[in-house]
Amino acid sequence: MTFAAASAVTRVADGRYEGRVTEGWDIAGNADGGYLLAIAARAVTDATGHPDPVTITAHYLSPGKTGPITCDVHVARPGKRHATGTFTLASAEATLLVGVCTTTDLGDASGPLLVAAQPPDLPPVQACVLSEPGDPFPPPFVGQVDMRLHPDDVPFRTGDTSGNAQIRGWFRLRDHEPLDTLALVLAVDSFPPTSFNVNLPIGWTPTIELTAHVRHRPAPGWLACAFVTRNIAGGYLETDGEIWDASGALVAQSRQLQLVPAPRP
Amino acid sequence: MTFAAASAVTRVADGRYEGRVTEGWDIAGNADGGYLLAIAARAVTDATGHPDPVTITAHYLSPGKTGPITCDVHVARPGKRHATGTFTLASAEATLLVGVCTTTDLGDASGPLLVAAQPPDLPPVQACVLSEPGDPFPPPFVGQVDMRLHPDDVPFRTGDTSGNAQIRGWFRLRDHEPLDTLALVLAVDSFPPTSFNVNLPIGWTPTIELTAHVRHRPAPGWLACAFVTRNIAGGYLETDGEIWDASGALVAQSRQLQLVPAPRP
Repeated sequence: MTFAAASAVTRVADGRYEGRVTEGWDIAGNADGGYLLAIAARAVTDATGHPDPVTITAHYLSPGKTGPITCDVHVARPGKRHATGTFTLASAEATLLVGVCTTTDLGDASGPLLVAAQPPDLPPVQACVLSEPGDPFPPPFVGQVDMRLHPDDVPFRTGDTSGNAQIRGWFRLRDHEPLDTLALVLAVDSFPPTSFNVNLPIGWTPTIELTAHVRHRPAPGWLACAFVTRNIAGGYLETDGEIWDASGALVAQSRQLQLVPAPRP
Repeated sequence: MTFAAASAVTRVADGRYEGRVTEGWDIAGNADGGYLLAIAARAVTDATGHPDPVTITAHYLSPGKTGPITCDVHVARPGKRHATGTFTLASAEATLLVGVCTTTDLGDASGPLLVAAQPPDLPPVQACVLSEPGDPFPPPFVGQVDMRLHPDDVPFRTGDTSGNAQIRGWFRLRDHEPLDTLALVLAVDSFPPTSFNVNLPIGWTPTIELTAHVRHRPAPGWLACAFVTRNIAGGYLETDGEIWDASGALVAQSRQLQLVPAPRP
């Protein structure tokens, strides 16, 4: 199933959308956080009438399980250039996400004035490590997207750590499905946790909050992605993401606040 | 008036708070964004029963003018360790902010495991440049806090630019008012725009969205603050903030998405 189909929503009433957490988009039974965020972003872009989520934040309240979901959107401010909607994504059992999203049309964005950030230095796609689902890991979700990890960042896969709290790699959708700004919202929470590469338990690293800024529509081709954690303290860590498109443009930035994974019982 | 008094809210009903945008906390007539955010954070901490806003996001819908405001808080998830509330801060005329805040008690946070980020290299407080209000600039707001700017970052004050899109400096509250985590929410949007130091119009740099992560309660003393912009493109810029306390701990991180200021008419 394409990303577009798996994240589709249907407007059933003013401000109410229905969708589905599709089978196979999970990590150990819990839906990927970027996938859930993209469903919410899709509902808000529809409700506000602008195609691109320029900034979206969600707080993650409960894990998402396979099955039907609703997304309620309240347009807090309609607008010709920017519109803002608050959203609540819920299953029959629990509220999954609450958040805010401002939308716009990035199609006529002007060019860069200052770009001090740099794309990650990645080996060619062929020299990177394809993520394929295993049993139980890598999780089913990685089979829904096409991720190629930097070889320096995969020691966690064999029980080792790189010592650097970062994960870098290439990303695209399967079957050459075209990339849009909703796919960027997916991509910002698709890679394995950076904490896997430092001396922390390999385990669920719950996201408390995730914010993505979409800075440009992506050009066709591979996305170069880098996720870095610089501060692990007080039981929390932040993960900063940057995504660059094939034209060399910075297309998305993200930051999430996560809980340090608990030791395995 | 102290920050605590200027940002106070009174619970008038379940989930409804009243407060006031106090005179003098403005930039050219519009209330400082960190000040408005702190008012909302204060309401959410009260409604959720946890003292510290560990992560707060607001989208800025209308400028705040002096006068009474309300803050409606919906507790989307109560909880013993973390609780999450959505909020709407409004005046009689307009919705000012919509957002989400997760609260906790940071008092028993454990120590750091990894700190790769570094505090800014600031000259001593006495060698930095005090911000005092002028007519009309610097704005009245700077008289409410005690900010000392890095001398390398103040060329904008004399019509020049440093060429580096950053603003660094020391921050504390006036009259030695003790710092708490709500003061950190204020501090993340107290400094002049980084864009003043590059070749962009000096003017209102509207915040679309601001997220702050509070990582630790601040120790008494000066806060060392750094705000950096790395990407100005498509009409938007991001500003990343880091705040360090006198003990050398990273106490807050922030990122905001802003509109590139328009040329002066």
